[in-house]
Amino acid sequence: MQPIVVDVMGGDNAPSAIIEGVRAAIDLGIPVELVGDPAKIENVDGITVHAALEVIGMADEPGRAVRTMKDSSIVRAAERVRDGHAGAMVSAGNTGAVAAAALLRMKRLKGVNRPAIATTLPVPGRAPKILLDSGAMADCQPEWLHQFAQMGSAFAQVRYEVKEPRVGLVSIGEEREKGNQLVKATHQLLADDSSLNFIGNVEGNDVLSGDVDVVVADGFTGNVILKTIEGTIKFLVDQIVTVLTAEEAVAVGAQALNHLAPIAAELNADAVGGAMLLGVNGVAIISHGSAGPTAVTNACQVAKDMVERDLLGELSAAVSSD
Amino acid sequence: MQPIVVDVMGGDNAPSAIIEGVRAAIDLGIPVELVGDPAKIENVDGITVHAALEVIGMADEPGRAVRTMKDSSIVRAAERVRDGHAGAMVSAGNTGAVAAAALLRMKRLKGVNRPAIATTLPVPGRAPKILLDSGAMADCQPEWLHQFAQMGSAFAQVRYEVKEPRVGLVSIGEEREKGNQLVKATHQLLADDSSLNFIGNVEGNDVLSGDVDVVVADGFTGNVILKTIEGTIKFLVDQIVTVLTAEEAVAVGAQALNHLAPIAAELNADAVGGAMLLGVNGVAIISHGSAGPTAVTNACQVAKDMVERDLLGELSAAVSSD
Repeated sequence: MQPIVVDVMGGDNAPSAIIEGVRAAIDLGIPVELVGDPAKIENVDGITVHAALEVIGMADEPGRAVRTMKDSSIVRAAERVRDGHAGAMVSAGNTGAVAAAALLRMKRLKGVNRPAIATTLPVPGRAPKILLDSGAMADCQPEWLHQFAQMGSAFAQVRYEVKEPRVGLVSIGEEREKGNQLVKATHQLLADDSSLNFIGNVEGNDVLSGDVDVVVADGFTGNVILKTIEGTIKFLVDQIVTVLTAEEAVAVGAQALNHLAPIAAELNADAVGGAMLLGVNGVAIISHGSAGPTAVTNACQVAKDMVERDLLGELSAAVSSD
Repeated sequence: MQPIVVDVMGGDNAPSAIIEGVRAAIDLGIPVELVGDPAKIENVDGITVHAALEVIGMADEPGRAVRTMKDSSIVRAAERVRDGHAGAMVSAGNTGAVAAAALLRMKRLKGVNRPAIATTLPVPGRAPKILLDSGAMADCQPEWLHQFAQMGSAFAQVRYEVKEPRVGLVSIGEEREKGNQLVKATHQLLADDSSLNFIGNVEGNDVLSGDVDVVVADGFTGNVILKTIEGTIKFLVDQIVTVLTAEEAVAVGAQALNHLAPIAAELNADAVGGAMLLGVNGVAIISHGSAGPTAVTNACQVAKDMVERDLLGELSAAVSSD
């Protein structure tokens, strides 16, 4: 297969953590190449590096950055996929810029209205849940959300081998008449689509705990959900660590934290590798900005799997035009 | 002062928990009366009960329920405030029905476009945060969100004595150009309003942890945030309890949970009493459906405080028309 191209300049821990993760992926037999500025990286003996001399920053405005920084690692990575030199791309850089570069360079998958970012939410002891769109499209149409449901369902099958994934639509009440105008119109489209296992509306408290596999929302709502979950977990973990490392808890605190550590490990986004941009004509993984080596290695593995399992073909087959 | 009227039929634990909470409020010197079906309640010696023979269920469609069940406890409570017999109302019943009854019976506060539900988010060791709208208006206009910011800011000052409350607008990035169309238009209105201490956009992960006092969102987004926080806390607490009560943790688990208990207590919604419906011409508190006696007592105390501190006057002074 064609190699996975990895943006060596993207993410808070770039380039060292990216290189370390890529090296581990290569050791696993995954073909990987890098794109970035050769002058800014080291310890890349034996790894192919394609030169791209610009770097899009995490805070740069995505659309403008992609238009003006044509020799950036993100844009070049997307071009290598477009041109067939790479089978998939992985970047832990500016999420919006990766989405924009993939969309502008690879174009949309045939039949798809708009792309969506599908984020995997790990749930200890259960199958992970998929949330989409988690930030690509802030303002959506019902028809787009309908396709997000179809793509998310196909992705759950290809990526996690979930049979007949249960699709839920984020709203503010279970009843079909609950929600904003976008959600009410979308509900009807999903209910009428016999290709989906649509279970109806789900609420914010169902995202992690509910009996749902694919959680569908517009990119504004999805991103707010994702950040709220991350923030609430961090908030609570900070509180717990403060209490259990205080002097009063010295007798039991350290041991208790040892017992709790596996929960934190399972909730860690690094185990997932990254979010998948669905709906562009290429496999593109957007890793968390804080991605460490493990996340990068996992992202390469997932990218390889998605190419081998023909994710793009499955997505094309799943989408309908309203 | 006029008594606080409490809906004795509303909530998962009605009527017994409501009566218990009201009795405790009366013992604190707060004048409280009940509205509900006298045939369905007992142990109300010495408490005034106004008869209302219908009960709006938690799952009833709010608008229709309020229109058709004119002798329901929720509608009658709102009428007692409208008619000046009660100073404020408290209900742990159907949130939408309480909001609809208050709006239809009390009408809007002069100058207010739409009401909003302001929910208090307790934060251990810090001042609580106010989230609004947490569910009254699913589809909003920028001008409504602007008034939500003004009302939320006034409420934070009246209720929690926060000076120059920091107002944040929920979006998917800190920069002013980030967000959906509604948020981008609202950002401009808030930035131009010198009566507000507007700190800019906040993200989902800032709601609990950020340096913000008043978090402004449309009712759809706000409700999703609130439910996501509740669900994530419950999810994590369940995981922690499972681990710390397992056999492997027997040596330290019980003690560790004892150390952690105060966090749970501080995050408990009962301590807050309920959400405040802002923008109607009367003080109305919507308690959580799961409200226990403590929540009801606290809600009565807050209702009394808000009447005495002239919340309605402060809200009226705060709103501007765009």
